[in-house]
Amino acid sequence: MHSIYQYQEFISTYLEEQTIIKEPKNLYEPIDYILALGGKRIRPILTLMTAEIFGTDYKKALPAALAVEVFHNFSLVHDDIMDDAPLRRGKETVHEKWNLNTGILSGDAMLILAYQYFEKYEPKVFRDLAKLFSKTAIEVCEGQQWDVDFENREDVTIPEYLKMIQYKTAVLVAAAMKMGAIIAETSEENCNLIYDFGLNLGLAFQLQDDYLDAFGDPETFGKQVGGDIIENKKTYLYLKAQEFANADQAEELKHLFSIHPEDNTEKINSVKEIFNATGASEVTKQAIQEFTLKAFETLQKINIDNEKKDILKSFGENLMGRKV
Amino acid sequence: MHSIYQYQEFISTYLEEQTIIKEPKNLYEPIDYILALGGKRIRPILTLMTAEIFGTDYKKALPAALAVEVFHNFSLVHDDIMDDAPLRRGKETVHEKWNLNTGILSGDAMLILAYQYFEKYEPKVFRDLAKLFSKTAIEVCEGQQWDVDFENREDVTIPEYLKMIQYKTAVLVAAAMKMGAIIAETSEENCNLIYDFGLNLGLAFQLQDDYLDAFGDPETFGKQVGGDIIENKKTYLYLKAQEFANADQAEELKHLFSIHPEDNTEKINSVKEIFNATGASEVTKQAIQEFTLKAFETLQKINIDNEKKDILKSFGENLMGRKV
Repeated sequence: MHSIYQYQEFISTYLEEQTIIKEPKNLYEPIDYILALGGKRIRPILTLMTAEIFGTDYKKALPAALAVEVFHNFSLVHDDIMDDAPLRRGKETVHEKWNLNTGILSGDAMLILAYQYFEKYEPKVFRDLAKLFSKTAIEVCEGQQWDVDFENREDVTIPEYLKMIQYKTAVLVAAAMKMGAIIAETSEENCNLIYDFGLNLGLAFQLQDDYLDAFGDPETFGKQVGGDIIENKKTYLYLKAQEFANADQAEELKHLFSIHPEDNTEKINSVKEIFNATGASEVTKQAIQEFTLKAFETLQKINIDNEKKDILKSFGENLMGRKV
Repeated sequence: MHSIYQYQEFISTYLEEQTIIKEPKNLYEPIDYILALGGKRIRPILTLMTAEIFGTDYKKALPAALAVEVFHNFSLVHDDIMDDAPLRRGKETVHEKWNLNTGILSGDAMLILAYQYFEKYEPKVFRDLAKLFSKTAIEVCEGQQWDVDFENREDVTIPEYLKMIQYKTAVLVAAAMKMGAIIAETSEENCNLIYDFGLNLGLAFQLQDDYLDAFGDPETFGKQVGGDIIENKKTYLYLKAQEFANADQAEELKHLFSIHPEDNTEKINSVKEIFNATGASEVTKQAIQEFTLKAFETLQKINIDNEKKDILKSFGENLMGRKV
């Protein structure tokens, strides 16, 4: 087994090997650009790690790992257009640096390129990977559509919200891990268990992202703290606050989530106070805990050495322990 | 073997069977909408026809045929955004009827759904189809990018133009036919020959489209006659006119392709006169003829009964004989 940093290195090196200047430049340069912006590479790391957990050399999993990373970046490029986002990882987004058409077309090409990485595998594995990938990709699209739809709805329920983040975020984490298991040709049961582990970890991760968006340390949280509040985004925190609020709190929250002040400091503080006073913060922390525990319970059922379970567990704890 | 109309029927029926109301509606309704707008279904017809030519029941080729059609419609939805087109087949385009985000996301979903149709085949055939599909899809993206790039270039050459229409249009016609051959499990040689047949037929088809855009019958040509001229599009006709023009003609052509008059009647007539006077019309007709003949020569090399070659030949003649 290797360390996270080693996996990151393997991924960067493999990525650089693939990067050849290709024509037409206006199609391929944006792809190199977004992939070079980096990020934590959590998903491809999980593919490599899972392949090794199930007894296969990480090298065999590199093409699938990169497929997952290229797909993830495809979704970022198109989502950034939809959200009209100027920045991604502190740099200009593709549609800002180039234009709308380039963002659409380069994104399309990335989705196709992702599929092409699976061609490195023999037919049976190729089919299993591509099938899982298509199922996951379509769910990510559905999740993105639910997210867009929720902006204009006042009656979003917690189960609906959980389904949205499951589709938009968690399924790709789960699929990244299952791909490693498929490549290692472990049992179907192990494949499904590792998928469930990834799914629950992914859910916990996204809920934690919601929580840290409000209560994270501005020094270490990668994004702007309070970003969701500024954008009046209906997160788990918001939905729970709405559920638990008394009449006054409900009215104030509704008001705060309808305004777009120049300076958001006061708005953010008031919303956070309501999140705390209603108990929404507390139940969000509990939910994160529950999904994490559910992931760890699933882990116990997987047919691998305890030593390997510990590696996955500590990766999960690391991910969930982040205060950032 | 069946008639074109029968193949169209098979495709419509199979398409309707697939159309189930799925959630989220805002993702799937635009997909049903664009697919229901119809069109001639040339590409999926070619998949079914080729499967039968090589001795397999067309039913076996239906999923691949639909994959090709869904992909073609994906490219139309995204291209219409890039071209800012209000109408497609006389109806509102997806991004006009809904919005930009819906156009992007529904298009993305269609690209993924296209891949999922190949899951109906056993691993080896699945892999061959998905591989050919990915190669083709990425070429279509590259072709679209060349097309966009050419808008801002004054030095586009004929070989560059031919490469652009090959990628943007012809490779999908070629791949549609090769998929039928793959499903029929014919020899690799036959697969490659039928691909070449489709490629040359596709090139002839696109050049004819360029020609008819200027010289087609407004009564029967599906699109607005003179559309390319109005948009100052550098087609084969234009590039050849530029090549053959004397100094006066060149200057006039350059001027005409820089203006956007309210009423285009006079502009269209002047451009057509130059296309004729320079001999561009004549060499374009010759090029169409040459690519069609090249397709028919390839056809002769395919290892099938003459009767079946005649079916493909008359399909080609029909397609090329259109005055519309």
